[in-house]
Order: sequence, then C-alpha cells, then structure tokens
Amino acid sequence: MATTTGSTALFTDRYELTMLSASIADGTADRHCVFETFARRLPPGRRYGVVAGVGRVLDALADFTFGESELAQLEPFLDPPTLEYLAAYRFTGDIDGYPEGELFFPGSPVMTVTGTFGNAVILETLILSILNHDCAIAAAAARMATAAGDRPLIEMGTRRAHEEAAVAASRAAWLAGFSATSNLEAGRRYGIPTAGTAAHAFTLLHDTEEAAFASQVAALGVGTTLLVDTYDITQGIETAVKVAGPDLGAVRIDSGDLAALTRAARRQLDELGAANTKIVLSGDLDEYAIAALRADPVDVYGVGTSLVTGSGAPTAGMVYKLVEVDGRPVEKRSKDKVSLGGRKAVIRRAKDSGTITEEVIFRGTADDARAAAGPHDRIVPVPLVRAGRRLADGPDLSASRDHLRHALTTLPWEGLTLSEGEPAIPSTQLTQPPAAKD
Amino acid sequence: MATTTGSTALFTDRYELTMLSASIADGTADRHCVFETFARRLPPGRRYGVVAGVGRVLDALADFTFGESELAQLEPFLDPPTLEYLAAYRFTGDIDGYPEGELFFPGSPVMTVTGTFGNAVILETLILSILNHDCAIAAAAARMATAAGDRPLIEMGTRRAHEEAAVAASRAAWLAGFSATSNLEAGRRYGIPTAGTAAHAFTLLHDTEEAAFASQVAALGVGTTLLVDTYDITQGIETAVKVAGPDLGAVRIDSGDLAALTRAARRQLDELGAANTKIVLSGDLDEYAIAALRADPVDVYGVGTSLVTGSGAPTAGMVYKLVEVDGRPVEKRSKDKVSLGGRKAVIRRAKDSGTITEEVIFRGTADDARAAAGPHDRIVPVPLVRAGRRLADGPDLSASRDHLRHALTTLPWEGLTLSEGEPAIPSTQLTQPPAAKD
Repeated sequence: MATTTGSTALFTDRYELTMLSASIADGTADRHCVFETFARRLPPGRRYGVVAGVGRVLDALADFTFGESELAQLEPFLDPPTLEYLAAYRFTGDIDGYPEGELFFPGSPVMTVTGTFGNAVILETLILSILNHDCAIAAAAARMATAAGDRPLIEMGTRRAHEEAAVAASRAAWLAGFSATSNLEAGRRYGIPTAGTAAHAFTLLHDTEEAAFASQVAALGVGTTLLVDTYDITQGIETAVKVAGPDLGAVRIDSGDLAALTRAARRQLDELGAANTKIVLSGDLDEYAIAALRADPVDVYGVGTSLVTGSGAPTAGMVYKLVEVDGRPVEKRSKDKVSLGGRKAVIRRAKDSGTITEEVIFRGTADDARAAAGPHDRIVPVPLVRAGRRLADGPDLSASRDHLRHALTTLPWEGLTLSEGEPAIPSTQLTQPPAAKD
Repeated sequence: MATTTGSTALFTDRYELTMLSASIADGTADRHCVFETFARRLPPGRRYGVVAGVGRVLDALADFTFGESELAQLEPFLDPPTLEYLAAYRFTGDIDGYPEGELFFPGSPVMTVTGTFGNAVILETLILSILNHDCAIAAAAARMATAAGDRPLIEMGTRRAHEEAAVAASRAAWLAGFSATSNLEAGRRYGIPTAGTAAHAFTLLHDTEEAAFASQVAALGVGTTLLVDTYDITQGIETAVKVAGPDLGAVRIDSGDLAALTRAARRQLDELGAANTKIVLSGDLDEYAIAALRADPVDVYGVGTSLVTGSGAPTAGMVYKLVEVDGRPVEKRSKDKVSLGGRKAVIRRAKDSGTITEEVIFRGTADDARAAAGPHDRIVPVPLVRAGRRLADGPDLSASRDHLRHALTTLPWEGLTLSEGEPAIPSTQLTQPPAAKD
C-alpha cells in the first residue's frame, strides 16, 4: 500500500524532474521563483472553497527526500548532475498559505512556495494532489455540516474511496464539522473520534433478528445502535426495544423513504417508552437530503459516498503556477487561461459586523496588505515554512476546525445556502496594492 | 503518508470489529460464511464495468495483521478475547473472483470470500475501498481507450487525486489500455512506463520561449515534446522547429479549441518540414472530447482530471454482502434493496461468434456452472486464495491488460458506444442452475 521507503518524493510527475534536469544544465535551476497554488474557479454553483490538507502537505514535505530506491528508479532517464542534486535535496525555501480551515475563492493564493526553481518546482505534483483532494472533501463536508445544523454527522465513506484517500477524507470531514468517523486509521493517525453501528450481515448471521440484537447489546451495552431495517422496520424497532429496553442508545435506518420512516420510527419509539432512543439515518445521504430531513426527528446522520466523492466535485481544480522569476512577474498569455503574474498578497474585506464582502488579491507584499487593510479587513496568508523549517507542529486540526466554524459565520447569508450560485464574495485582482482604507 | 507499521488492518470501519466482538462472545464468529462483492447497478448510462484492483486486494491481504500499534488503538473499545483473536488473525479462508481485467455487469459476484464470519467479515472495508476505487477508474479508462482507438493515451491525473489514489489510478488506467503514466511511483511500484513533457513554468522560467526550448532539447534531445501554448501557438511551433529541427519528437497543446489548433498545428508542422513531429493534446480531455477529435490529426492524448475522477463516476458502488451462513442462503428483505441469497456461480453466455449475450448468475457451484454451460459460454470466477494462501503471485498486470482488451472485443457493438444506455448484456439471476445448453 505504502511506499516501502517512507519517502514521498515519487508521488511526482516525471516532467518535474526532467524540467529540473534541463534547468540544472542551463543554470536556470538557481533562479529565484515564486509559485502560487490557486483554483481558477470553484466547482459549478459552489459559493466558497475550504482549505484542507495544509498539515498533510507539511508532513509530506518532511519525507520528500530521494534515497537509494528513489534514485534507482530515476537513473534511467536523469543525468548524473540531476541525480546528485536530488540525492542532496531538501526543501530550503519558504511557504506561506491560507491557514487550514480558511475559506477560499477563485484566484485565492492558497499556498505560495518561494525558492529556487529547482527547489520549488518539484513539489508541484504532491502539493496539488493533497490540496486538490482534501479541499474537495472539506468543501462538501462543510455544506453537509451546515445542512445538518446541530445534529451530528458521522463520516462512513471509507469503503467508497481508495483506502488511503479515505483516511484523508475522514480528516477533511472532521475539520469541516463532522463529529466522528468510522475509519480506524483516521482515529490512529489524527486522533479523530471513531464510531460505528452494525451491518446487515450481523443480523443475517444470526438465526433471528432478536438473537442478533441480544448479542450486540450483550457485547456493547444498551447504549449501542441497532440496525433495524434488515427485514421489517416496525418489527425491527419493536424487537430492538424488547431486547435492549427503553434505554436503547439508538436505532439505525439505512434504506427506504427516510423521512417517512424516521417519523414513524420516532412515534413507535415514543410509544414503546424509548423516548431517549436516538435515530441514526444513513443511505446515500448528501447535503440536499440532509437539508430535506431538517423537519424530521433525525438525531444523527451517517454520510458515505457523497462525502468521499466531494458531492459531485471530487477534485478542487487547484493549479501550481510560476508567477515570479528573479523578481520579475511572469504569466501565461494564451487566450483562455489568463493569470495575473507576480507574487500576490490578499486582503479580505469585511463590514463592521464581520461579514466578509470582497477578496482583494493584488501584486504586492504582506506589508502592502497591512498598509491597505481597513480595521475589519484581514490579511489571509500566514507564514508556514521559513528556509525549509516548518514554523509550527500544527496546524492543530482542532484549531483548524474552530477556524472554519468561525469563518463560515462571516459569509454573507446567501453563501451558506445550498442552491447553486456565484461565489459568496467577489474576488478582485489588482496589479498593485489597493489604496488604504480608512 | 503511509501507516507507520505497514499493516493494512486499520483501513477498516470500526463496526467490523465490534461485530466481530459480539460474534466471538455469542459463538457465531465461527459460523461458515460466504460474502459476495458486487455492484447492484452500473453508473448511470454505462454499458459495462471493468474489474480492477484484484492484485491490490491480494497484496493488502498479506499485510492485514494486527500488531502492537494496531491493537493499542483498538484496546479502548474491544474486549480481551477480541484483541486476542485479532493478535492471532490471518485470513485462512478462500477467495474466488472475476479475474482482473474482466468485464462485470449488475449483480456480478466480482469477489467471493468464504470463511468463518470472524475471519471474513473484517475484510469488508478494505476490499470495497480497493475495488470501488480501482474499478471506477478502469471503467472510465476503458471508455477513453476505446475512444482513442490506436492513438496512445498518457495518464496525467496525479495532481488531481489523493497522492496514493493517484498511484492506483495509474495502475487501473494502464490495465485499461493507457500507454504510460506521468506518475513516478506507479512506475516504481507496478513497472508502468512513465512519460512526460514540460510545464508552462519551464517556459516562463526562461527569458524567452526559444531559450526554454533550446534548454529542453539540449537536455532531453530532439525527440522531446515541446509545450507550445505558453504564449502564441503559431509562434511557439515555429520556434520549436527552429530550435529542434524537423526531427522534433512532438509538440504539446494544452489549451484552447483543441480540434482547430491541432489541424492548424499539423499544417504548420508539415510546411516546416516536420512531417514526423507528433502532436500531443491535453487539457480537460474526457472520453467524449477524445472521440470528438477522432478526425483530427492528434497523435497522443494526455488525460488527467476525468481519468482520476472516473469521468463522473468516482466510485463503483460495490457492496460486500453476507449471502450464506452454514450452508443456508441469507438475504436482506427490505423493500428497496433485494438481494439473492446463497453462493452464486456465473455463466457468461456467448454466441458462436464469441459475442457475449447474457450473464447468468445463479445459486449454485462452479460444477453446476460447468454442467450448464454451452460450448461458447464461459465460467467467469476463478480461484484466487485457498485456505489463506494466494494461488499465484499475479494477476500479472500485463496479462490483465490483454484480458480486458480481448474481453472488450466480445461486447455487442452497442456496448462500446459512448452514448448512455442499458448494460451491454442482461444479467439474469436464478435461484438454481439453468438447464444445460446443447
């Protein structure tokens, strides 16, 4: 499953290394470069993006080294000076970026990498892999969390995603407001709370549904969640309460007309005296289904496929573009993909109330941004790496979760709707710092 | 990135292990069970599925063991007998399945796991993660390969997918007919040929496009592929041939109206005497765009996002269902998800010409299937694991690639069209073996 060496260096497109080779040969590998990571647009209809994966990028960077095994793989197509360069490679530049849990919009420079061309170009593929995946999942998860309101969400999508991607998806979902994950590796790796109920197989294994429920309660206590839809749901609920008593933790319903079944289940549980027994719903839920169930007595949502596939947008569309060479802004000039060259700074404008109104992205420095920012505005990017050294062990995932929860409260109200529309705030790109605001 | 221990055991939903715990306590963990892995339906409009990931499942199975680190993670919620069971766990059952590179249809039992409940249930999550991902990518890739015909496809999607999922996607794409991948780890892990061109950054790094091209040709030879759309394409092609001469390997165009640009590029290259210089196209290609370019002088397609996201179907929708307990067929009986219980055998019916006509899935054994199969019919599943022992080092990926290439030729012609429609052949489910065919 994993690379046998623990190195992340080969999660890389071949052309990064052949470009390196050519640039070493002609001396341009040493030019001072700035690369910016951004999405040209949000997925269709989405109002905001969510930054996730920054911590994973910084973790992966620490293992981005070329040992014997990696070099042996590259030897057939790289020349000796390049192999030598890679053998000694450590990232020694700077990284600035949006904090994990921050919102982003079209053109937001989510991660800016500064260093020599050779030092910085070869990180492109890995940075994009991580951010494109994790941001896509987090954006979908944030919409689901908003739709769910105060009701907890359990991430159950592991089986619908690549086994390693599933762990990252659990992380992104938790960051974006999910309460727990079914994924045990995510529990180990990131300390995310794990949760689970039972599968239909467990009921089918036993001679009767009652025997299955009795076994589960005996092993896991009456606080457990019994899956009641293997045969007849009404009978299943009756049996569940008969077996566990009125203190049964929860029942789970995984199929059928979930709204109608939930209301009927609530009535039945109440009639059986199990007024505190919760109802866990699962079964192809997405943010729209979650929202549609808002008036129904659901206690917990389990979400799988739609979460791990980004609910229709499985990748965030980020690119990693060279914007500055030796202090000179550079930009592609083909007709359909115009970019603003030069290293950018960002001011996020806000009203007195804290509601954000505009993302101003301009060619300039953090100092320019500070000079031009009004009292409620914010300078978004923060330093993450200096001279190759990570500035903090974090970002702490729990702090990032809080960061996002707060950031969502700063969106204009239409930004939190599920309906399709424009980004919640406009992005303005300027070739120079905006005038200072009073 | 990887699990620190090399174990794959925690790529697992928590409930698999709590079900195990309850079944150990009540004695049902030892019941003899059959689990089948299948998709209830194909993604909307798709005509066939492609089996991929079988080799990865078998690799992952070898590392599915619970060491100290895994057990420490489980100790807070599992009882001592379960922890003891897991400490000694090795899969000791049997696995049968569709060979990698085989076609599948709704209900096809792609992978059948036989063993005690405890031994087999806990593999559910990992088997599904791998098959759901890899089959989704392979199915999309196969359609792209069909659309491309004899023209080679390069897989370039790494940056749009989770870093480990990207490696598996490269594998699935190659299996399904792609010629090469940009992903260096896929080259190392699976021996897939790697390929690459250059990025816009390389041109922007240099003072002029000509300097960039000269550098690339000096480092990589005139056989290299020059990216000509950073500024003006016509000028880019002129410069490319000026620098490399008429033996230039290829030019790449990554943006704009690809059909028109390709025709113009071909004319221009021919006029410049570079009649053998190929044209590589990339830029948001999917199977439809590839097909639409069929009449244009494209030599190689580079495909990224649409490949790694399964071209709209990023997961294959497979489930892992308990179908038999101690020889007794079992099945969920809720209204919307009816399954046929019992271990199934499969005959794929075919005409004299070899064209397949029907997938007959029936409760029965491989012997029953052999008895009922006509001379052109085929028994699809093969033994993969016996008493925990993998029967072959394979499947060899190259053989699987050949298997799929042949299998696609057995589809009715409408099965190879890109238009949306029903599965290419009907699936028939029977509770007993069909009558023998003469």
